[in-house]
Amino acid sequence: MEASTSPDSRPEPIDLSHLYSKVTTNRTTSRVKDFYKYFAIPGIGNLAGGMPNNNYFPYDTLEATAALPNRFTPTPNKPVDPPADLLSKTTLSDGLSSSRVVVPKTSDNQDILRKIDLKTALQYGTAQGYPPLYSFLRQFTIENLHPNVPYAGGPEIILTCGATDGFCKAIDALSNTWNEDRDWIGHREGLLVEEFCYMNAVQTAKPRGLNIVPVAVDDEGMVAHGEGGVLDVLENWDRSRGKRPHMIYTVTIGQNPTSGTLSVERRKAIYAICVKFDVVIIEDDPYWYLQYPSASESSLGHRGIAHSDHLNLDPPKPQKSSGYDFLDSLVPSYLSVDYQGRVVRLDTFSKTIAPGCRLGWITTQPNLCERLLRITETSTQQPSGFVQSMVAELIMGPHDPKHGRGGGRSHGGWQVDGWVRWLQGLRGNYERRMQTMCSILDGGKELVRSGRRKSIDNEWSVVDKVTLFDFTWPLGGMFVWVHLNFPSHPLWNTTTPAKLAQGLWVHLTTENYRVLVGPGAIFSPTDEIRDKRSWAYFRICFAAVDESEVEKMSKRFVDGVKDFWEKKSLDDIEESTRGFESSEGLANFLGGC
Amino acid sequence: MEASTSPDSRPEPIDLSHLYSKVTTNRTTSRVKDFYKYFAIPGIGNLAGGMPNNNYFPYDTLEATAALPNRFTPTPNKPVDPPADLLSKTTLSDGLSSSRVVVPKTSDNQDILRKIDLKTALQYGTAQGYPPLYSFLRQFTIENLHPNVPYAGGPEIILTCGATDGFCKAIDALSNTWNEDRDWIGHREGLLVEEFCYMNAVQTAKPRGLNIVPVAVDDEGMVAHGEGGVLDVLENWDRSRGKRPHMIYTVTIGQNPTSGTLSVERRKAIYAICVKFDVVIIEDDPYWYLQYPSASESSLGHRGIAHSDHLNLDPPKPQKSSGYDFLDSLVPSYLSVDYQGRVVRLDTFSKTIAPGCRLGWITTQPNLCERLLRITETSTQQPSGFVQSMVAELIMGPHDPKHGRGGGRSHGGWQVDGWVRWLQGLRGNYERRMQTMCSILDGGKELVRSGRRKSIDNEWSVVDKVTLFDFTWPLGGMFVWVHLNFPSHPLWNTTTPAKLAQGLWVHLTTENYRVLVGPGAIFSPTDEIRDKRSWAYFRICFAAVDESEVEKMSKRFVDGVKDFWEKKSLDDIEESTRGFESSEGLANFLGGC
Repeated sequence: MEASTSPDSRPEPIDLSHLYSKVTTNRTTSRVKDFYKYFAIPGIGNLAGGMPNNNYFPYDTLEATAALPNRFTPTPNKPVDPPADLLSKTTLSDGLSSSRVVVPKTSDNQDILRKIDLKTALQYGTAQGYPPLYSFLRQFTIENLHPNVPYAGGPEIILTCGATDGFCKAIDALSNTWNEDRDWIGHREGLLVEEFCYMNAVQTAKPRGLNIVPVAVDDEGMVAHGEGGVLDVLENWDRSRGKRPHMIYTVTIGQNPTSGTLSVERRKAIYAICVKFDVVIIEDDPYWYLQYPSASESSLGHRGIAHSDHLNLDPPKPQKSSGYDFLDSLVPSYLSVDYQGRVVRLDTFSKTIAPGCRLGWITTQPNLCERLLRITETSTQQPSGFVQSMVAELIMGPHDPKHGRGGGRSHGGWQVDGWVRWLQGLRGNYERRMQTMCSILDGGKELVRSGRRKSIDNEWSVVDKVTLFDFTWPLGGMFVWVHLNFPSHPLWNTTTPAKLAQGLWVHLTTENYRVLVGPGAIFSPTDEIRDKRSWAYFRICFAAVDESEVEKMSKRFVDGVKDFWEKKSLDDIEESTRGFESSEGLANFLGGC
Repeated sequence: MEASTSPDSRPEPIDLSHLYSKVTTNRTTSRVKDFYKYFAIPGIGNLAGGMPNNNYFPYDTLEATAALPNRFTPTPNKPVDPPADLLSKTTLSDGLSSSRVVVPKTSDNQDILRKIDLKTALQYGTAQGYPPLYSFLRQFTIENLHPNVPYAGGPEIILTCGATDGFCKAIDALSNTWNEDRDWIGHREGLLVEEFCYMNAVQTAKPRGLNIVPVAVDDEGMVAHGEGGVLDVLENWDRSRGKRPHMIYTVTIGQNPTSGTLSVERRKAIYAICVKFDVVIIEDDPYWYLQYPSASESSLGHRGIAHSDHLNLDPPKPQKSSGYDFLDSLVPSYLSVDYQGRVVRLDTFSKTIAPGCRLGWITTQPNLCERLLRITETSTQQPSGFVQSMVAELIMGPHDPKHGRGGGRSHGGWQVDGWVRWLQGLRGNYERRMQTMCSILDGGKELVRSGRRKSIDNEWSVVDKVTLFDFTWPLGGMFVWVHLNFPSHPLWNTTTPAKLAQGLWVHLTTENYRVLVGPGAIFSPTDEIRDKRSWAYFRICFAAVDESEVEKMSKRFVDGVKDFWEKKSLDDIEESTRGFESSEGLANFLGGC
C-alpha cells in the first residue's frame, strides 16, 4: 500500500503562534459554536441579535449588465488557444458578449452555501466572507489554484477588503509595534522587502516601527544566495538593529515595479532559508494570472537573448493538475512548496474584476486564518455585501433560476470554467499591450548618430550608438522597469544623477511627449536606495491607458528620451523639479497601485 | 460691527497630536498635491499609475430596484407628519414605491463631484471616499446633521467600511498598544465605556492592552458627577493601573444594550470633564435617527411615570436649523458642544440602508481626519465602489439623466429631502415596533397570584403581586433593557443568581416560548460586572424579527418569564446551561450588532 492511501499523509503545518503579535495573542477564541444549536431551533424568534429588519433595506434587487467570460480574446498566449465555441471576435463589449446579473431580494434556496439574495447579503454576516462566495473561493483556491499545498488538511481562506487590507491584517497578526522613544532595540522586528518594492507595504509596516530591510533582486526577483540576498541578509543580521526579521513581503509574479517573475527553483531556495531562520513569507500576487510566456520568445526575436538564461520557463508538471491547462501553465505560488505552513498568500479581485471591488482573500494555514478572522471581526467585519453578492451571482449564478440570474448564458453563472476563461482573456489583452510597448521600447532604446569624421588621410562615415535605456521583457504583470543609461547623457557631469532623472521626468510631461512615468524614487524602501540608485529607473505601466494609446504613448516616451539626450541645458525645466526630492507626493498618489 | 461678521469667529480646534499613537505620528504626510498639476496636463498619458484598464471590468452597469423615500409611514411620530404628497399607504414594497437605479459605465459629466459611473467607481479611488458620495455626505453632515459645531471651519469627514471599521481606525489613531510582558504599567492607556456596553468595542480595545474602564450609567447613559460617573473615575484614577484614560467610547442614543438617550445637559457636563482631563470622546451613534419622543408619553400612559424626570425632551432650539424639522427634533450629537474639537463621531449606513453596505463615515476635526486618511490608505483604501456608487446614485442621482438613473421619481435621486424622509419612515417603523413590544412587556411584568388566606377569625381573598421584571421605555434605538427581579423567584435561595438567569435564558428557548434574548453577560466590559451584576439583565431587540412577529415574540417572552417563576426545580435545564459561564460564544455571534 502506498502512503497516499491514508487520509492525509502530508505533514501538519507547524505552530506559528510564537510569531503572533501580542495583540493577536490576546484576542479571545470564539465560542460561537456552543450557541449554534439554539439558533437552529425551528421557529425560534431571535430577539437577541441587534440586526435591523431586512424588509427595511431600500434595495429590492441588485442587477448588472456584465460580460460573458469570452469577451476577450486570449491569444497570442501559448499554450492556451481559445476553444472554438468560446471564441469571440471582439476585444470590446458587444451585445453577444453581455449578460444580465440579478441578485434577488429573497431566494428560496435553503443551502446557505448556494443562497444568494439581498436578505442575507445585505445583513450582518460572517467575517470569513459571504457564505456562497467564501465557499466558492475556498474550493477554487484549494482545488484549482493550489492543488499541491504540501501540508495536511491544506490551507484555509478568509475574504478581505482587497490585498492592502489583507497585508495590513497579516502585519497586525504577525508583528508588534515598536516605539523608538521607549522600547528596547532588541524588540524591534523587521520585514524583508525587494530592494525596489510596492511602497504601500512599506507605508503600512514602517510607521509600526518595523525595520524595513531590502533584499537584492535580479530579473526574477529576490536573490536567495548571492550578495544582499535573503540568506546573506538573515545570516549576517546585525542584532544592534533589532531582532532578525521574521517576515518577508514579496510580489513574485510581475513584481511591482521590477516586473520579475520568480521561478520554482528560486522559491524553493528562499523557502529553505525561511525554514532555517523561522521567517513567514507574505506573498502578494495581484498579477498572478497575468503571466506572459511569449515575453521570452519576443525578447529573443528582438534582441537575440531570451528573457533569462536561468529561469525555467517550463514549470515542472504539477503532482496534481488544477484541472485547467491555463492554471497549470502558471508559475505556482509559494504555497506549492510550503510544507510547514509559513506562507500567507494575498489574492485580490482588483486586477481580475476591478480595484473598486475592494475584495480579495488570504490563503494560509487554518490556525493563522482563525486569528485573521478575529482581527476582521473587530475591523472590517466583512467585505461589502454589495460586491460580495454581485460577484457571487456573476460567477456562481443562482441555484434556482426562478430567483436571480448569473453572468453566464441561460441565467446560470460563469462557473469555474467561465472564470478561468475570463482570466485567460484578460491575460491575452495585457499580453498584447506588453508586446506593443516592449517592441517600441526595444526599437528606441538606442540613439544612433551618424556623421563623418576626418582622419589623417581620409574622411570616414561613422555611426555612434548610444544606449539610452534597457529593460527586460516582463514575464508577467503590468510594468516595464526601464533602466536609464544616464552616464551616457551629455550633461552627466554637469549635475547630479537625481537632478538629471528629475529633469527627464519633467521633460516627458512637456508638450511634445506628455507622458507620466513612475520615477524609481517612489519604489525605494529606504532613503539610501532612493538617494543612491533609484534615479536610474522608471516604471512604465502598459495596463492603464486605453489600448489604442499604448503604442502612441510608448512612442512618445521613446521620442522624449531621445530628445532629452540632445539637451544642452536643463535650465528650462530646473524650476519644475523643485520639491521633487522626496517624491512622496507621487508615491501617495499611486499608493493604491 | 459684531464679531460674527468676521469669516469664522469660532475658536480653532485644539491640537490633539499629543494624543496620537506613535504609529499614527510616524505616518508621513501626503504630498500628492505637489503632483496634481502634472495629472491635469491636457492629453497627458498616464504610464505612471498601476491601475488596470477600466474597459476590462466585467460590469457594464450596476442597477437596482430600490425604494422611493416614502415607502414607509413615519407616524406615529411627533412632531413630524408626512407631507401629503409623500404619504404612502403601505408599509411594505409596492409598485408605486419602487424606482430603478442605474450606474452607467461612463458618464460625460466633467465634475468629479457629480460624475457617478463605473469607470471611476470601480477604479482605484481616494481614501476619503468616492468623490460624489464624499461630497454629498460632507455637505449633509456639516449643513444638515451638525450645523452648530462650535469650532472654526467645522469638522471634516472620511468614509469608512462601517462604524466598527471607524472605531478600529480611531483607536489605532489615538492609542498605543501595551504589552504586559514588557511595558511599564505607566504607559498603559485606557478607554472609558458604559458599564454595560457594545462588546465589539471592548474586543477591539482590550487585546491592545488598554484598560477597559466602566462608567456608571443611569437611564440616560453615562453619569457625569455621581458615584462611578465620569468625573469620579477620572478624578480618582489610580495610577498604579496605568495612565489616566484619555478616551471615552459611548453610544449616546438608544445605547446598546441599555437603550439610554443622553440629554444635551448631560453631554455638556461630561464634555466639561473631558476638557479638564484631556479626554477624547468617540461617539458611536448607529441609532441616532431612531429617536422616539412618543416613548415618554406612552410610559406615562401605561405606568403613570414619564420616561425620566430629568431628561429634557424638548431640546434647546438649535442656533442654526438643519433645515428639517425632523433633524432639528433629534437630540444633537456631542459635536454640537465640541468647542475644542475632541469629539470623534462614527456614523454608519448599517441601520439606515443595510449592515451589508459596510459603509459609514467619521466626523471629526480636520487634523485628526487627515491622520485617519493615512491609516485608511494602508488598510481598507476605500469602501467598495459597488456600494459607494449605488448609494451615490440612489440618493444623488445622475447630473445628466442620459447617463444613469437615481432612486427618486423621474430618474433623479432621492436628494436630501428624500433621504430625510426615508429616515423618518424608518423611525416610524421601529417606533411602532417599540410601542408594540413595550406595551406587551408592560402588561406582563407582574405576576398576580390570587388565592385565599385564613387568618385567626376569617378567610380572606388576597392578591399577591410579584414584579417579575422592569424596564424603561426606550427613547431611541432597537433595544429594551429588561431588569429581571430574580430575588422574587421561588428558587432564589437554592442556586446562584447566574444559574437562575441562565436557566431562564434556556427556558425561553424551549418549545412553548422559543425566543432568544441577549443575556446581560455578553454586554459586560469587565469580569466583575459580568459575574456580579450582569445576570439581572436581558437585552431584547424589537428590530430584527418581522413586524408581524414582534407581538407574538413579546408575548412568548412574557409567558416564558411567568412560567419560569412557577418552576419548582431547574433540573430539566441544568444540563443545558453548562459552559455558559463565559457567554463569549453568543457575544461573538452577536459581535457585529
